[in-house]
Amino acid sequence: MGGGPQHFGQPESNAMKVQGKPMRTIWVEAEGAAVGIIDQTRLPHEFVTRRIETAEAMAEAIRIMRVRGAPLIGAAAAYGVALALTRDPADAALSSAIDLLTATRPTAINLRWALEEMRAAVAPLPPKRRAATAWARAGEIAEADVALNRALGEHGLALIEQARARQGKRDRVDVLTHCNAGWLATVDCGTALAPIFMAHDRGTPVHVWVDETRPRNQGASLTAWELLQHGVPHTVIVDNAGGHLMQRGDVDLCIVGTDRTTAAGDVANKIGTYLKALAAHDNGVPFYVAVPSPSIDWSIEDGLASIPIEERAQSEVTEIAGRGVGGGITQVRLTPGGSPAANPAFDVTPARLVTGLITERGVAKASREGLLALFPERRPNRAGA
Amino acid sequence: MGGGPQHFGQPESNAMKVQGKPMRTIWVEAEGAAVGIIDQTRLPHEFVTRRIETAEAMAEAIRIMRVRGAPLIGAAAAYGVALALTRDPADAALSSAIDLLTATRPTAINLRWALEEMRAAVAPLPPKRRAATAWARAGEIAEADVALNRALGEHGLALIEQARARQGKRDRVDVLTHCNAGWLATVDCGTALAPIFMAHDRGTPVHVWVDETRPRNQGASLTAWELLQHGVPHTVIVDNAGGHLMQRGDVDLCIVGTDRTTAAGDVANKIGTYLKALAAHDNGVPFYVAVPSPSIDWSIEDGLASIPIEERAQSEVTEIAGRGVGGGITQVRLTPGGSPAANPAFDVTPARLVTGLITERGVAKASREGLLALFPERRPNRAGA
Repeated sequence: MGGGPQHFGQPESNAMKVQGKPMRTIWVEAEGAAVGIIDQTRLPHEFVTRRIETAEAMAEAIRIMRVRGAPLIGAAAAYGVALALTRDPADAALSSAIDLLTATRPTAINLRWALEEMRAAVAPLPPKRRAATAWARAGEIAEADVALNRALGEHGLALIEQARARQGKRDRVDVLTHCNAGWLATVDCGTALAPIFMAHDRGTPVHVWVDETRPRNQGASLTAWELLQHGVPHTVIVDNAGGHLMQRGDVDLCIVGTDRTTAAGDVANKIGTYLKALAAHDNGVPFYVAVPSPSIDWSIEDGLASIPIEERAQSEVTEIAGRGVGGGITQVRLTPGGSPAANPAFDVTPARLVTGLITERGVAKASREGLLALFPERRPNRAGA
Repeated sequence: MGGGPQHFGQPESNAMKVQGKPMRTIWVEAEGAAVGIIDQTRLPHEFVTRRIETAEAMAEAIRIMRVRGAPLIGAAAAYGVALALTRDPADAALSSAIDLLTATRPTAINLRWALEEMRAAVAPLPPKRRAATAWARAGEIAEADVALNRALGEHGLALIEQARARQGKRDRVDVLTHCNAGWLATVDCGTALAPIFMAHDRGTPVHVWVDETRPRNQGASLTAWELLQHGVPHTVIVDNAGGHLMQRGDVDLCIVGTDRTTAAGDVANKIGTYLKALAAHDNGVPFYVAVPSPSIDWSIEDGLASIPIEERAQSEVTEIAGRGVGGGITQVRLTPGGSPAANPAFDVTPARLVTGLITERGVAKASREGLLALFPERRPNRAGA
């Protein structure tokens, strides 16, 4: 890494730290030539960064989930376009890079949103001006993500403090989260975890139930790691356990992220989110979704009918990696040879099960009217809709 | 094993087979001296049997789940008492063996039921007659389990055939199950899987969605293995996926087992069962529980308030075993060192979410009246209540 990653913009004081050092999940390593990422497939066992020099390498990193999380893959794809245009700024190269990056993951809307932002920024320009603009616009997308998450975190923090006031007698607030919607899923701060980090920093005794989130265990490997790095008390549980904890009164609120939320408030998120929303509803536990506005797909309403659900490789179910006795990362097979597996990566939680959508502009009711009240510019009768 | 396990009673033609050979999960190896079991902690990667010669060894086998499944641990505990009385038939030894075996697992009621059956059979006898009676009574308990499961299977089969008639156009019936309530959870035949094996044997095109069932993966390792051995089409899924499959219409009915069902129809079963019952209810998918009568706890009604939920070791969550690249079973760590875990082993599904309880006497509504209609001898105003 030479002298270490150069951040695009200095991280602010409340930015995440790795072993005490401020760090983002993606950064410009060499302006116009290379981007740095954290290889999230190696966490929590090894902290490894990688230098990405081509759109093809970025597409591969997104596909195999070295970078993942809807906001982060939006920013990563934007930098992928910048890398492509540095090599070849022609129309064909732009289209080809956007097509390549779009095809990596079908469910998260941020990917498509960021690629359309990039196209809109560079397509009208003469080719020789495109690369510089692309690097600048990708940087803006990354910065905007951090700003959105900070604002969203403040609104979510109020919900955690309300939950603490509500439960009153207990000495901690218990938040359940699914998958990883933390710092690692974004450029910085996180979405669902942003209010949790803020609550902890301000002295609220927050404790997090971390769903391990099979099959890829983003909870057990990434959320737990982030919370450990930040010193936030937490307990890892299997995905099966959350309903039981809610029945016992051990969860005060749920906060999860989203890969795409429809204009009517249906929420696509990591597979299993729907089951936790059902349990929250059955037990009167508030269920919130952290939704930065680039995760809203204003073009659709019915999430079950309209959001494509990625089907990933069987091997993510039949095999698992962990730290072996020798200390290295090793893969083991869980199922008998001959048993097939299915691996849908996301599910859709209907708006009726969602207590509220935490956006950068405040907490919206999970409905068309609720979202439009915060984003009036999206009303069909307005300009810009 | 010498000439191989000697079965207590010849398995019948519809008994389970391992590599074509009829096999039970527990058998008398040497009358009055040793019992054989399948070491279920080694499946699906290795098929290993073990010779158990003392009550202490049987208690250990139950505790670390070499034998597991509510009906099987009932039979195993009964044989444990027989082993103890062979060594020492005195009152103190009887009490001590029963206490030791009772303490192994708190949630399944069959364990306590079988131990009380054993006590009732031998306590009134003079010590010198106890051992022979204990072996005979343990054998009866094992045989009774098989008979109950066969009867239960017939009633469940009718439900699968009804589901097939209902969906009509599709070319298969999709059943979702959680954990392992198969042959391996019982002495033979299984509870939740009994109707599935019967349906398959009679030509019904049944396909099973197998929840892997973290943390111990009894679905991925035991249910998948049983279905493979029997040739039943199936697909392993992570526990997070079932709700999504039900939303898509890909599940025709759910059948699960139980470790204890209350007199009012609340169902304790492997952690995560409640989440699937919620999803089934939300999607209009029938949710059935296979309940041989020894799994009914007639002394309690409110499962959430009254059923003790076993908390098992954190290491079951933080580590997992599988087949390594070298072919042997190897353990890997999944979570970062420093992240604690919680591991409740069961949850309670309220009766309101259960479509029906499949018993050996037919399918009961999940309610006090529903159960009493099939078990009228349990009415409080009758003798024997």
